[in-house]
Amino acid sequence: MSKNNNKLSIIPLGGVGEIGKNMTAYVYGNDIIVVDAGLKFPEEEMLGIDIVIPDITYLIENKNKIRGMFITHGHEDHIGGLPYFLKHINVPVYGTRLTLGLIEGKLREHNLLDVTKLITVTNQDHIKAGVFTVTPFYNNHSIPDTVGFSIDTPEGIVIHTGDFKFDFTPVDNRKADFHMLAEWGAKGVLALLSDSTNSERPGYTMSERVVGITIDDTFRQAERRIILATFASNLHRIQQVFTAAERFGRKVAVVGRSMVNNINIAMELGYLQVAKGTLIDPDEVNKLPPEQIVVLSTGSQGEAMSALTRMARATHRKVEILPGDTVIIASSPIPGNEKFISRTIDQLFRIGANVIYQAVSGVHVSGHGSQEELKLMLNLVQPKYFIPVHGEYRMLKKHAELAVATGVEQENCFIVDIGDQVEFQNGRARMGSKVPSGTVLIDGLGVGDVGNIVLRDRKLLSQDGILVVVVTLSKAEGTILSGPDIISRGFVYVRESEQLLDEANRIVTATLQRMVAENVNEWSSLKTGIRDALSRFLYEQTRRRPMILPIIMEV
Amino acid sequence: MSKNNNKLSIIPLGGVGEIGKNMTAYVYGNDIIVVDAGLKFPEEEMLGIDIVIPDITYLIENKNKIRGMFITHGHEDHIGGLPYFLKHINVPVYGTRLTLGLIEGKLREHNLLDVTKLITVTNQDHIKAGVFTVTPFYNNHSIPDTVGFSIDTPEGIVIHTGDFKFDFTPVDNRKADFHMLAEWGAKGVLALLSDSTNSERPGYTMSERVVGITIDDTFRQAERRIILATFASNLHRIQQVFTAAERFGRKVAVVGRSMVNNINIAMELGYLQVAKGTLIDPDEVNKLPPEQIVVLSTGSQGEAMSALTRMARATHRKVEILPGDTVIIASSPIPGNEKFISRTIDQLFRIGANVIYQAVSGVHVSGHGSQEELKLMLNLVQPKYFIPVHGEYRMLKKHAELAVATGVEQENCFIVDIGDQVEFQNGRARMGSKVPSGTVLIDGLGVGDVGNIVLRDRKLLSQDGILVVVVTLSKAEGTILSGPDIISRGFVYVRESEQLLDEANRIVTATLQRMVAENVNEWSSLKTGIRDALSRFLYEQTRRRPMILPIIMEV
Repeated sequence: MSKNNNKLSIIPLGGVGEIGKNMTAYVYGNDIIVVDAGLKFPEEEMLGIDIVIPDITYLIENKNKIRGMFITHGHEDHIGGLPYFLKHINVPVYGTRLTLGLIEGKLREHNLLDVTKLITVTNQDHIKAGVFTVTPFYNNHSIPDTVGFSIDTPEGIVIHTGDFKFDFTPVDNRKADFHMLAEWGAKGVLALLSDSTNSERPGYTMSERVVGITIDDTFRQAERRIILATFASNLHRIQQVFTAAERFGRKVAVVGRSMVNNINIAMELGYLQVAKGTLIDPDEVNKLPPEQIVVLSTGSQGEAMSALTRMARATHRKVEILPGDTVIIASSPIPGNEKFISRTIDQLFRIGANVIYQAVSGVHVSGHGSQEELKLMLNLVQPKYFIPVHGEYRMLKKHAELAVATGVEQENCFIVDIGDQVEFQNGRARMGSKVPSGTVLIDGLGVGDVGNIVLRDRKLLSQDGILVVVVTLSKAEGTILSGPDIISRGFVYVRESEQLLDEANRIVTATLQRMVAENVNEWSSLKTGIRDALSRFLYEQTRRRPMILPIIMEV
Repeated sequence: MSKNNNKLSIIPLGGVGEIGKNMTAYVYGNDIIVVDAGLKFPEEEMLGIDIVIPDITYLIENKNKIRGMFITHGHEDHIGGLPYFLKHINVPVYGTRLTLGLIEGKLREHNLLDVTKLITVTNQDHIKAGVFTVTPFYNNHSIPDTVGFSIDTPEGIVIHTGDFKFDFTPVDNRKADFHMLAEWGAKGVLALLSDSTNSERPGYTMSERVVGITIDDTFRQAERRIILATFASNLHRIQQVFTAAERFGRKVAVVGRSMVNNINIAMELGYLQVAKGTLIDPDEVNKLPPEQIVVLSTGSQGEAMSALTRMARATHRKVEILPGDTVIIASSPIPGNEKFISRTIDQLFRIGANVIYQAVSGVHVSGHGSQEELKLMLNLVQPKYFIPVHGEYRMLKKHAELAVATGVEQENCFIVDIGDQVEFQNGRARMGSKVPSGTVLIDGLGVGDVGNIVLRDRKLLSQDGILVVVVTLSKAEGTILSGPDIISRGFVYVRESEQLLDEANRIVTATLQRMVAENVNEWSSLKTGIRDALSRFLYEQTRRRPMILPIIMEV
């Protein structure tokens, strides 16, 4: 590290102060690399929004400096924003084989596959990208082929863990690269950016094999069909289902689009070992005896249109769940989904199925390390500076406390917001100025064309509906030619509220006539008059505040 | 029990297959009694709905037979529907002193207090109500003065537990009436209706005193202000806060409307022991040294308008939270509220407060008994028949399993839906036919005037907004006199989407001109034509499906 005027900036553009849309930029002089390009699912109040991605204005402004996009793993909160990024910034994308396999499908959908350079990496690679040298290292997580990155910069080594746990007995036997981490740690690490998801959770996260034991027990006891729902990307768990199916002489049918896709990609790339003849078509489920069937399904979050939800409601085209079947929901609810999963469980019980779920038995383990694993990472890496990432504020804070407990100086821990720059120069770090950053809402094909005003209107519309008041005036004389007509949607049952709406009409008519007689002829005044009179009346009568949209036509 | 043609019907009108709006009717010949009249908070998809109450059509049809309303305790899911019930059916309401105290305020708001007969009961009473004799017995729960009822019927004794846990060391020292339950059990109980909320939870629910220990520890360590948020009705917990405040020389200020109300009622009725001078006005908070302050607050569910949420956002008029203050959130999230609480916690951490919450320390215990307590109830009562209540389907099912484990015959367990009748005649039970039952939605002043169509419209409006298309036609000639005008709300940012909306206007104009030229003059055809053309165009361009409302005016 020679003294100079250049500095290293680490800029999280997503994933801090929130769970989701992970993206971090590493900047040094004229070189930038980006780690991950995730999406986030909308909050409840973002009505009608499909997905949320980071604002990449800063990267677009500096697009000529960007030397590469490095992806840690194939979860949506790390790759889901990639197409939107690549539409603006065409740089090589580095990732492991499975990760790129999952990205390919996504880029194909967006017509970006042919124009994007995808470069497969392993933990043997040292990728030069401008001044940076990036070395992937293997981690354990709830999707195979996950890596973190060691980023060699002119200021020193930065370790970016990506999502991780330490699974000492991983299903695919691919251990985490403890030795590489230890070696970097011994050499000296400038900064660690580490996954904070489970920083509030004491102890160790269990090995994925624990779920395998529950799966085995359940398969041993089940007398009829087994339906197992889990995350489509948790191929370790899916592997354990196939292994159990083979052991207990069952065939596996796969339902749900993302489950089918992921299993196809994983089998093709060799990430899933399936014995010949084990996989059957869903059409065959009804032709085989129930004790020979496993159905692997999406819907472990109770998603409305998922295969499991449709099976539970008896609206799935191919697979029906019957009394005596065993349903395993191998997941824990993502915050916000609790009610949907509960409903699915209830429907399954009503059918007469035997339901195995997280609240009553161990059918899920987290993919993120708990406090002891986070401390192990800190002990291996021994960073001088620490930036907790991948977590809401309280998780980052808790993680910083853990770091201090393992010996990092309190003042060397940076709890940051998106857009913050942590700047390293001559071995010392400080907070820099903010770069443009934020949240971009995607609704259908629209990227960023829905914002606060639109969302506020949707919220208003969703609560009490809308009343449209239309009236046609004579341009020449200012008299009412037609109307006022009142049309409502989402307000009241029109048929049962005729009296209310008739009265509303009388009030609008009277207001209009009065204003016309008084020669009020500015449209805005007329509209305000209508809105005020109607709004007051409706609130008195119903205690509701529907949106009121007065429209004046002139002929 | 003499042989005769009459029978006892037990009819849950709410609270089974769901959590909330508890209500159960007991019917024998010409006599009916009702236990509880609760409300339920709306599901996410019930947009704009304020509360949900049971459909009481059956009770209204039989109102002359109803001899009384018996209330187990003062929680909203047991008393919140009472005003709506009493508006149709004026019968005496029986409850304990605190329960009636809480009901009074509610009835006053609805102008029902003067016309309703409120009768205070204790566990010494045997209330005659037609053929029924009702004896209250004391329970433990997260609100004081909770009772269950022993209902003596011509077919035998039915025990209706209400919400309960067995707290062997209750804060108010009022033990559950084990001996009464044991005595009825020894005599022979026909049926038990028991609380299923925690039937999935193994072991025992901890005593409320456990929370007192955490409160004490926190008070001992806190160096500045303490802000504690909990359920306003959990007066046991509130008592422990006052006791700790006195012990550690702190004054208590109360913020949040329901907290102020409940504490006033409880102090007035003697359910809360507060030393003179302990209670201070919120205005005084800033005048006293921080180490002498406790603020008791609502908002333990992260509710948007609550005192805690406002304090966390620094928008509370009187109390500010400062760095170094200790905030205790003494609750666990009700399913669906997880995100709101997390946000509040994050905001508090950002302020620099020390936040104590359930995920990291024991500041909450449930008010409902876990599996061992449910089995203790079953062992004490030894019912012949068992009807699990107060729970979603899976909880009822689990509870029935527990009952069978304690010796109830499998075929004597009835898992019922609302409106189901369990009929008892000559000591034998069977499922009868269904009575009218369901869900009534309340939006503002409207009771039942919002239903599926209105909700479907609100959902549609909330997702992609609305476009109103207005055109004025000449009645005589069928030509376009004015418009088409397109007004959108909740669809796109109008300013940034001018081109899209201009193009939409051209498409509607062209469609209209074509139809007018083709002499299409039925309004419905014109409207369908406009809607189809515009909908297709917008979906192609945006992949959104806003509601489209064509309005044709004729002059």
